[in-house]
Amino acid sequence: MTDTHDFQRVAPDTLRDFVTAVYQTTGASPEDAYVAADAMVQADLWGHQSHGVLRLGWYYARLRSGAMRSQTNLSFPVDAGAIAVMDGGDSIGPVVAKHAAHDAIRRARAHGIGAVSVRNSNHFGTCMYFTRMAAEAGCIMLATTNGGPNMAPWGGLKKLIGTNPWSVAVPAGRYAPLIMDVANSGVARGKIFLAQTRHEEIPLGWAVDGKGRPTTDPEEALKGFILPMAGHKGYAIGAIVDVLSGVLSGSGFLDEVHGPYDPVNRSRAGHLFIALNVAAFQPLAEFDARMERYIETLKAVPLAEGVDEVFYPGEKEARAHEKQLTDGILLPADTFAGLDKVAAEAGVPLIARD
Amino acid sequence: MTDTHDFQRVAPDTLRDFVTAVYQTTGASPEDAYVAADAMVQADLWGHQSHGVLRLGWYYARLRSGAMRSQTNLSFPVDAGAIAVMDGGDSIGPVVAKHAAHDAIRRARAHGIGAVSVRNSNHFGTCMYFTRMAAEAGCIMLATTNGGPNMAPWGGLKKLIGTNPWSVAVPAGRYAPLIMDVANSGVARGKIFLAQTRHEEIPLGWAVDGKGRPTTDPEEALKGFILPMAGHKGYAIGAIVDVLSGVLSGSGFLDEVHGPYDPVNRSRAGHLFIALNVAAFQPLAEFDARMERYIETLKAVPLAEGVDEVFYPGEKEARAHEKQLTDGILLPADTFAGLDKVAAEAGVPLIARD
Repeated sequence: MTDTHDFQRVAPDTLRDFVTAVYQTTGASPEDAYVAADAMVQADLWGHQSHGVLRLGWYYARLRSGAMRSQTNLSFPVDAGAIAVMDGGDSIGPVVAKHAAHDAIRRARAHGIGAVSVRNSNHFGTCMYFTRMAAEAGCIMLATTNGGPNMAPWGGLKKLIGTNPWSVAVPAGRYAPLIMDVANSGVARGKIFLAQTRHEEIPLGWAVDGKGRPTTDPEEALKGFILPMAGHKGYAIGAIVDVLSGVLSGSGFLDEVHGPYDPVNRSRAGHLFIALNVAAFQPLAEFDARMERYIETLKAVPLAEGVDEVFYPGEKEARAHEKQLTDGILLPADTFAGLDKVAAEAGVPLIARD
Repeated sequence: MTDTHDFQRVAPDTLRDFVTAVYQTTGASPEDAYVAADAMVQADLWGHQSHGVLRLGWYYARLRSGAMRSQTNLSFPVDAGAIAVMDGGDSIGPVVAKHAAHDAIRRARAHGIGAVSVRNSNHFGTCMYFTRMAAEAGCIMLATTNGGPNMAPWGGLKKLIGTNPWSVAVPAGRYAPLIMDVANSGVARGKIFLAQTRHEEIPLGWAVDGKGRPTTDPEEALKGFILPMAGHKGYAIGAIVDVLSGVLSGSGFLDEVHGPYDPVNRSRAGHLFIALNVAAFQPLAEFDARMERYIETLKAVPLAEGVDEVFYPGEKEARAHEKQLTDGILLPADTFAGLDKVAAEAGVPLIARD
């Protein structure tokens, strides 16, 4: 168990500068290092600590080994109007994904819809980092990615399917975008790592151990099988996300994909970004008004006992962002210790705590 | 409780001819009547009886009242290369959806990707009826639809969000397409009625009572709210499917949509069909080989205790189809009684049982 003394706050800019400096020591350009850092810090700002700077040590190890390449090398095996296939050349995941997302938006502006299918990328962090960009540019975006295997097919006993997250973001007028961002496991693997870091138990139903027995021990869960969300439905969705991300792009799929925890192997993760330019379907102002009414209708319902407020998807993250932008990002002491370790290895100054 | 004496078999062609005849009595063209009939019979062939001919009486009532129009009247408020917005003109749901799906495929063949956003449609039956067509034409298809409200937003006490099903189908070489088809509710309301009839408790997580408190009492659950699959994740996915289907198209959304059980109101359901032409991304033969390897890898895993076989998504439906094509479709006597009632109202001959 942890208490509040085990947490400390840090200014987002301080954290971003630190991660940027670490990436630059591996040969990444200042621009690419900034993107990688911003993707992680943004996850922390949204309260998605499992995808935040907690992961820096893993990415740093992959950059050091050459499994992930610090210098960006993108190519387009297919470049055909509304669609493209991009080869990420094993470059830094968020850098590849940001290029691909922007490219999909550009194609959507020209054709109403655009798709970029990405092969040979890396773990890119939290999906909504990219879909939200599109929403802010007036597009609806669907993003999918596969990941290292951590679930068995339904009824099987071998890890073949990743958490394979996917996100859709939608512009919402004067409100922050409506965003869905879901992993198909009952719980993101990062949350089990976080529980391990914090020395906390995990709830029953998140995972089974290596022999298929229910467990509350994060150590045992990490040796066993994470369960899909919603049973066989999560299995089906996970497989589809893998096919869209890995099979369509010509990248790795099933257990050919290696996760960020693996310091030595090429990731071979694939992604898919589909952008729809809202203004091609209806005037954006009309759409915005409809989305505002959508959100207001959701939030105006009577509340269940013990509930203070109904949130629309993406609203909690937007609120956490605002709060932590002002107050600083609250991180566990263990996370700071991990960052100090990376700082020492990379030869950059430790983070000054606020 | 039912036993095997309460079920009877019927040849698929007999069933399809019967439903076609009923639709024609309402003024539908032979071609449109056939599509409506085939969509229902196909759902039964796949074992999706909840979307099969069981529903004929409801659709028939809607056609009789004029809430759903028997004569197809489609227009294209937007027709712009890779994308279109189609107005279904309150026509028969599967007829509208089939036109839209084919149109999305045609656009994908020209542009690599195609999207058709549909407003003012009707309930179209089972999503995979349309996505599978695309897979058989060498395309990956995503289809979404909204429906009448039956779930509250997470933490709220008013039904606003439908089950809002969505499906993705993918060509799979020599195998039947890999198909995901999911509703975002956790459990069908019918299962709670069944528990009530049997005086059994329901599992926690299926529903909340009228005040939003978790309950295992089916009586209280029926006064309350069905929960989405996977908790707040299902809420987020349901909202996104509603936005993609209803908001983007300019159709109804949230409780503006009326389900097929409503005999008098315009449906205002919206849909979205996105097709990706596989051959634009990679040679179809390569893709097929990759998908065959995908399926074979899934099916080759060690099995959990008590499990005979791992199925890939869509495989169970393909197998049920083959079996019932040979043996006839097995339907409850109650369903036949419902069809006889429609036959009498429509003045068409009763179905001859095999």
